[in-house]
Amino acid sequence: MGLFSKDIRTFNDLFIHQLRDIYYAERQLVKALPKMIDKATSPDLKQGLTSHLAETREHVKRLERVFDMIGEEPSAIDCPAIDGIIKEASEIMGDVEDKNVLDAAIIAAGQAAEHYEMTRYGTLIAWAKQIGRQDAADIFAETLEEEKAADEKLTQLAEGHINMEAAV
Amino acid sequence: MGLFSKDIRTFNDLFIHQLRDIYYAERQLVKALPKMIDKATSPDLKQGLTSHLAETREHVKRLERVFDMIGEEPSAIDCPAIDGIIKEASEIMGDVEDKNVLDAAIIAAGQAAEHYEMTRYGTLIAWAKQIGRQDAADIFAETLEEEKAADEKLTQLAEGHINMEAAV
Repeated sequence: MGLFSKDIRTFNDLFIHQLRDIYYAERQLVKALPKMIDKATSPDLKQGLTSHLAETREHVKRLERVFDMIGEEPSAIDCPAIDGIIKEASEIMGDVEDKNVLDAAIIAAGQAAEHYEMTRYGTLIAWAKQIGRQDAADIFAETLEEEKAADEKLTQLAEGHINMEAAV
Repeated sequence: MGLFSKDIRTFNDLFIHQLRDIYYAERQLVKALPKMIDKATSPDLKQGLTSHLAETREHVKRLERVFDMIGEEPSAIDCPAIDGIIKEASEIMGDVEDKNVLDAAIIAAGQAAEHYEMTRYGTLIAWAKQIGRQDAADIFAETLEEEKAADEKLTQLAEGHINMEAAV
């Protein structure tokens, strides 16, 4: 996009662009999370990531509901940001030998993904309200709360025992 | 890294890896912010980004202090996450025609960068404390507060007038 024409003309176009971006990101995370679950050693980390994978699948469906509400076909656009976050997660997982250190690295990678989603849903809530789509804003807000809770859960696991075990 | 050997063996190695990652990210943002300042129209957005550019230069120096404290030469490793975030910012800035819509897009792009830094500094604080480097954790905490304040400032600008002007 954007090489020969400027495709985003209105605030509504910008909103749809951002919706397609997060739709791509959530679907990439549905593919990436199983690899993180597979690499994680700590049972509570595996379990936390597994339940967040189920939530992430639900987030994809919620985005499809929003596309439907605004009369657009669900479609994704490439999102270099989430691709970079997932690439970095994949690289670090390949670079760490010790299982406890790897768990700490997986938590950090997961939190980077959560924070990306938090910022995008925060933006989408503000934009949806501005264009008079409180119904969409409510759906985004539900997901945002789950992303924040997932981030908080990862912090608890890290500070509860995983960082300590990694540092031994 | 990581193709033929696993380079991160200890938690301390992971900490240094993350330090090099954020050092790269902060330096890339020092290069990227002037382009965002140049594209921004709203005087208060230009001013907010300009003062955050000055802070970002200071964050680079603080990271160099931490490298010095732990007896390592400052060095950066590629960080695909921030590269992706900056690439996405650059693409969206090229794709938006209307100046008010562009300001809203620049705010969203800036907040994505802030959130990436917030998650990384949050991790670095926890890891520094775990390896007994409260001195480094204190420096990261100072930067984290500035990243949070920059994010909050962008939210205020968006909700204060920029989203409203973009939606007209």
